[in-house]
Amino acid sequence: MANIQEIARLAGVSTATVSRVINQHPYVSDLTRERVLKIIGQLDYVPNYNATSLKKGATRSIGIIAVDYNSLLMSLVRSFHTIAQQSGFNTMLFMTNGECSKELVALEMLRSRQLDALFCLVRTNEWNIIESYTRYGPIVTWQRLTSDSIPSVFMDQYQGYMLSLEYLYSKGYRKILNVFSSKGLNTLERIRAYRDFIQMHGLKDSGFPQFHNKMSIYDGEEIAQWWIKQTDKPEAISCSTDEVAAGILMELQRAGFTVPDDVGIMGFDNTDIAHLLDLTTIHYPVDKQAENAFAVIKSMLDQSVPKLHSLAFNLIERRST
Amino acid sequence: MANIQEIARLAGVSTATVSRVINQHPYVSDLTRERVLKIIGQLDYVPNYNATSLKKGATRSIGIIAVDYNSLLMSLVRSFHTIAQQSGFNTMLFMTNGECSKELVALEMLRSRQLDALFCLVRTNEWNIIESYTRYGPIVTWQRLTSDSIPSVFMDQYQGYMLSLEYLYSKGYRKILNVFSSKGLNTLERIRAYRDFIQMHGLKDSGFPQFHNKMSIYDGEEIAQWWIKQTDKPEAISCSTDEVAAGILMELQRAGFTVPDDVGIMGFDNTDIAHLLDLTTIHYPVDKQAENAFAVIKSMLDQSVPKLHSLAFNLIERRST
Repeated sequence: MANIQEIARLAGVSTATVSRVINQHPYVSDLTRERVLKIIGQLDYVPNYNATSLKKGATRSIGIIAVDYNSLLMSLVRSFHTIAQQSGFNTMLFMTNGECSKELVALEMLRSRQLDALFCLVRTNEWNIIESYTRYGPIVTWQRLTSDSIPSVFMDQYQGYMLSLEYLYSKGYRKILNVFSSKGLNTLERIRAYRDFIQMHGLKDSGFPQFHNKMSIYDGEEIAQWWIKQTDKPEAISCSTDEVAAGILMELQRAGFTVPDDVGIMGFDNTDIAHLLDLTTIHYPVDKQAENAFAVIKSMLDQSVPKLHSLAFNLIERRST
Repeated sequence: MANIQEIARLAGVSTATVSRVINQHPYVSDLTRERVLKIIGQLDYVPNYNATSLKKGATRSIGIIAVDYNSLLMSLVRSFHTIAQQSGFNTMLFMTNGECSKELVALEMLRSRQLDALFCLVRTNEWNIIESYTRYGPIVTWQRLTSDSIPSVFMDQYQGYMLSLEYLYSKGYRKILNVFSSKGLNTLERIRAYRDFIQMHGLKDSGFPQFHNKMSIYDGEEIAQWWIKQTDKPEAISCSTDEVAAGILMELQRAGFTVPDDVGIMGFDNTDIAHLLDLTTIHYPVDKQAENAFAVIKSMLDQSVPKLHSLAFNLIERRST
């Protein structure tokens, strides 16, 4: 295979110029650039960048591990990526679909120094397996975990959901419908919050069905249709996501109902759609979580002390309650 | 470092059982699993999965290259990921921020067979550089490109935007405001469509400012505020994205205006938010584009003939026009 000297010779330029063209540095004339690129094409030359970055010891790349795409996870990934790149780090997103071997691709890249660190949003392998890789670089998780070697930036869903329920109570709502997302630890914590909530206030359970696996606008529309059909209607709906709340709100408006006069609707996450539709919601500080995750990783790489945000859910009151 | 035989001996199980625990296969009792994992933890054992997958020759992983996060790109990534994993492929998303060296990490992984193929949404390096890597595996792009070695699944933005403008014309709108997103080839094609449109219909240019770099709900709200202040108001607004259209719609409603009576609003992309708010829009078949991209990659890997969807923009008429 051709080398950089040969390209320089054929193009009649210095090797430094060839290098500038390859790395797209400025101060190379269009004419020179084109000539060099043409020769690169003819010669079948492939610059070996990875070798260089491996020699330097750090790739300045952080892997992010997730199981699937959803809007909250994507907000988190986007925030993490933004803060990481401000410090000169690249990110690589590994979608595992819950397959151990897919996750191990990322872990192995940490071992072979192709990644400097991992941010594990949702893991698939047993924690023991993942922990065994922490000797190769920092691994930080978003999941609830108590571990000496894997720091976690998880948030207490119990507290967040209780905030939602207590707010609805303070507004006079008593018959509350719960809409939950997928059945994970976070949902279990929200269910626990609801049980404690009705017990604390001496409410009896409304007897409404519990909706599970509801996360989208379309799910919200279905729930609105269910609500319309009931004779004994919930006075308020506490939703798993802003998308569900948005779907309910618009479907009810189309059917001629008024929010909050007919029913109070409460979102969760405080995404753009809650702002758009004036939804009362719970602010989920994903951006600060992402910043904390990066700060922890950075401090582990630099052996410094991280500066962390304190994380809390906040009530955002708007016009849907 | 410990090996699998040593773990098996200490745990009093067969190496096959250790392997099943590591790979999370079923039919291992919880007790055995825990014992094996405990010993793995004590022994500092890290299974070398990558070596195995490299030996097999194919990692069944496809890299996706993008520059930043935005909702259309994320829809495309999500669709591509879904279809790829149905065929047993994993995806890795590389965010480059427009830095050549970050993109080269992905290209080098193709060369070293850690990736089977690349789907390049938005490239950073010169095409010549990227083309030189096609000998190591298929590279398919979403960008407008004519190349013998890099197939493209791009769509003609001129046609899509013309569809929007012609529809508005047919509804009687003459004074149309254009809202564009970032200044790339796609926007240039949309600008060209608008120029041809006013010429074809003998309209004179409205003299409205051209809004650029507008993509979000918040951008839409600003444009609504601008619209409110004008004495000579646009009769219709043709937006770069559904988010912009949604922001305009809700901000105008809050200010007491009625859509479409006061002004027609047209989105673009047909994302969930257009459905939610009954926005007339142009359906952008990102899911089919993603399927085509994967079909092309798959056929290049299998040396088979891909079955492709024919791609077209479609008008979705709802209540905002």
